[in-house]
Amino acid sequence: MKIAVLGGDGFVGWPTSLHLSQAGHEVHILDNLSRRWIDAELGVQSLTPVETIQERLRAWHTETGRHIHFHLVDIARDYDVLKSWLAENRPDAVVHFAEQRAAPYSMRSDRHKNYTVNNNVNATHNVLNALIELDLDAHLVHLGTMGVYGYSSVGAAIPEGYLPVGIENLAGDQASLEILYPANPGSVYHMTKCLDQLLFQFYAKNDGVRITDLHQGIVWGTHTEETRLHPQLINRFDYDGDYGTVLNRFLIQAAIGYPLTVHGTGGQTRAFIHIQDSVRCIEIALKNPPKRGDRVKIFNQMTQTHRVRDLAKLVSGMTGVDINYLPNPRKEAAENDLVVKNEQFLALGLDPITLEQGLMNEVVDVARHYADRVDRSRVPAAVAWTRDIAEQLDEASSPSAPRAALG
Amino acid sequence: MKIAVLGGDGFVGWPTSLHLSQAGHEVHILDNLSRRWIDAELGVQSLTPVETIQERLRAWHTETGRHIHFHLVDIARDYDVLKSWLAENRPDAVVHFAEQRAAPYSMRSDRHKNYTVNNNVNATHNVLNALIELDLDAHLVHLGTMGVYGYSSVGAAIPEGYLPVGIENLAGDQASLEILYPANPGSVYHMTKCLDQLLFQFYAKNDGVRITDLHQGIVWGTHTEETRLHPQLINRFDYDGDYGTVLNRFLIQAAIGYPLTVHGTGGQTRAFIHIQDSVRCIEIALKNPPKRGDRVKIFNQMTQTHRVRDLAKLVSGMTGVDINYLPNPRKEAAENDLVVKNEQFLALGLDPITLEQGLMNEVVDVARHYADRVDRSRVPAAVAWTRDIAEQLDEASSPSAPRAALG
Repeated sequence: MKIAVLGGDGFVGWPTSLHLSQAGHEVHILDNLSRRWIDAELGVQSLTPVETIQERLRAWHTETGRHIHFHLVDIARDYDVLKSWLAENRPDAVVHFAEQRAAPYSMRSDRHKNYTVNNNVNATHNVLNALIELDLDAHLVHLGTMGVYGYSSVGAAIPEGYLPVGIENLAGDQASLEILYPANPGSVYHMTKCLDQLLFQFYAKNDGVRITDLHQGIVWGTHTEETRLHPQLINRFDYDGDYGTVLNRFLIQAAIGYPLTVHGTGGQTRAFIHIQDSVRCIEIALKNPPKRGDRVKIFNQMTQTHRVRDLAKLVSGMTGVDINYLPNPRKEAAENDLVVKNEQFLALGLDPITLEQGLMNEVVDVARHYADRVDRSRVPAAVAWTRDIAEQLDEASSPSAPRAALG
Repeated sequence: MKIAVLGGDGFVGWPTSLHLSQAGHEVHILDNLSRRWIDAELGVQSLTPVETIQERLRAWHTETGRHIHFHLVDIARDYDVLKSWLAENRPDAVVHFAEQRAAPYSMRSDRHKNYTVNNNVNATHNVLNALIELDLDAHLVHLGTMGVYGYSSVGAAIPEGYLPVGIENLAGDQASLEILYPANPGSVYHMTKCLDQLLFQFYAKNDGVRITDLHQGIVWGTHTEETRLHPQLINRFDYDGDYGTVLNRFLIQAAIGYPLTVHGTGGQTRAFIHIQDSVRCIEIALKNPPKRGDRVKIFNQMTQTHRVRDLAKLVSGMTGVDINYLPNPRKEAAENDLVVKNEQFLALGLDPITLEQGLMNEVVDVARHYADRVDRSRVPAAVAWTRDIAEQLDEASSPSAPRAALG
């Protein structure tokens, strides 16, 4: 297949591009390199040393003999460039990662909220709009998020996209139907993925666009089979307060002997998936497209759920560091249960890597290996979700509180 | 109250501004005059002669002694200008009409789809973002649309925003909850109002913004008590294929002796409201704000439902013109029932104007009065919703078909 990977320079986009290239597909990365610009803005860098995209692709060719093509395009801003590229290349599939993907970053300021909404909505809409305008029947595979469901809104097991409900119909009888799961986003970033869902629903219905939306859990792990092939192919590892997910931050804190920071009670339950499984899921989704006229196909791309405090205990047990409980900067329930259905990927052959199997590798091969590259000032999470919470955090970080111990 | 009316130069925005000014409020119109630019783009004009905004406001002052302020601002593009204005003026309420509001216009081409998504999403998000950033607890009243509900998706009576449903909870028991009515938009324009709804839900929940969303039916009628005061205060009357709603097009067709064009079977049932009731509803909404921390308050702003073919028969009966059935350019069900709840506005004192009472006035005072200004080439609707439908329409408009009779 000829596959366009939008956002193919990012954390999931890069190993996906390699995985699809290794599987024999003709892969084209379209990316504006925004993730590198945001590193510059925040003054942070990946724990692992990331090469330029050009060097990455040269190394890939040297190592495997395969070519991946790169095109510098801003999907959200340059509609006409995107459209021309699609018209000329007519890919069989488009994998869409071209969105700002950090919840804390999306909540930093009004400018960051606007950027995230603008970038993400326009990127998704531009792709859909161009496919329809060009009459191009490519399968669109989009990386969504478990965050579209929220964590405590409905009280039922989280289905794969569509929730069966009962209603009273016009005749006054009980009737049942399936609806798109009621969106309940917890940040501006998550909200944009809810907006994406509505765009997908509309264009699938009105124009028959074939779309798969993958609601992914929190990704952990760094290496995949392909990124291991050469040091220049290594994937990003973010540990800063904006882009570092909870597990990455624990790993780095452990590696530098800093107490693991758990927000609130740590009773938040989250869904997880290893990066290797993530790229496999995308390949499986590409092999199993919906038919033209079908509704949007939705998979839950996750393999395990864990409470944050249990993760902290796991990492603490492996490494011997303490756990430190701090006020929560996010507006969310202190404790939540989370039951998530993920039968579809399992039925299609996914054999998940568990945290228990893979976590020690991360501790040794990644966190300790690169510990001398850690910027200790970037370890605590810092963005508050609302004004009220910002004030509470300010109080908590007064001189007597643990956060200030970093100094 | 000090009230900002975003989009106060438009079809509903203008009479709303006058109505609120007449009620003694300090009214500020913020508008980019895009509706006038779109007239220029399409080469059409309002049937009624519309003055410049400056002349309108001068006439209002002369007639009533009242001042309405005007600020040329693009709400969607000029976030910083909007924010500065709000910071300086700190209004008590913001009425938000600043969106592209024609479904056919939103479906014209990829450029129009992008414009509509960009303009509408950014306008709404910019307002919310600025209110939060400025810690400004103004009541936001937004003009939504009945189109967010779709017309046949659920098979239940359409509630005011929130639908009670039954689900199976984690314990396997039946539980009931209220959800935002599952969105089912029929055009890109309607889709943007569904996206708006999600923005409102999120910011009401996360930041306590006080929001009222008014899901309005199709507006008919031209004059309100205030626009009647002087010819220079007259409201727009659109009859072109993009901005002219079904009833306006029937009125104009009747006035020039052109057969009434009904698309499909005319079995589509739609919700309607008179422009005078529309401005009254906005005043009622402003007087009844939600409390900080409440969920978004949603009203259905409509007073009657009618089938399109019944409207055609009503106009035909009053005027003697024939009815002509043509292929439907929209992708929608041929026939639908529509039961809409609107108890909230009725309970708050709205006494609706019925079509039976008011339609003859429109025929005589507006359509016949200005019939010499009609551009006959603009009377048929022309924008097809999908490629397939466009091809069918092309066939139907071949020399032997009725559409070509206009020549």
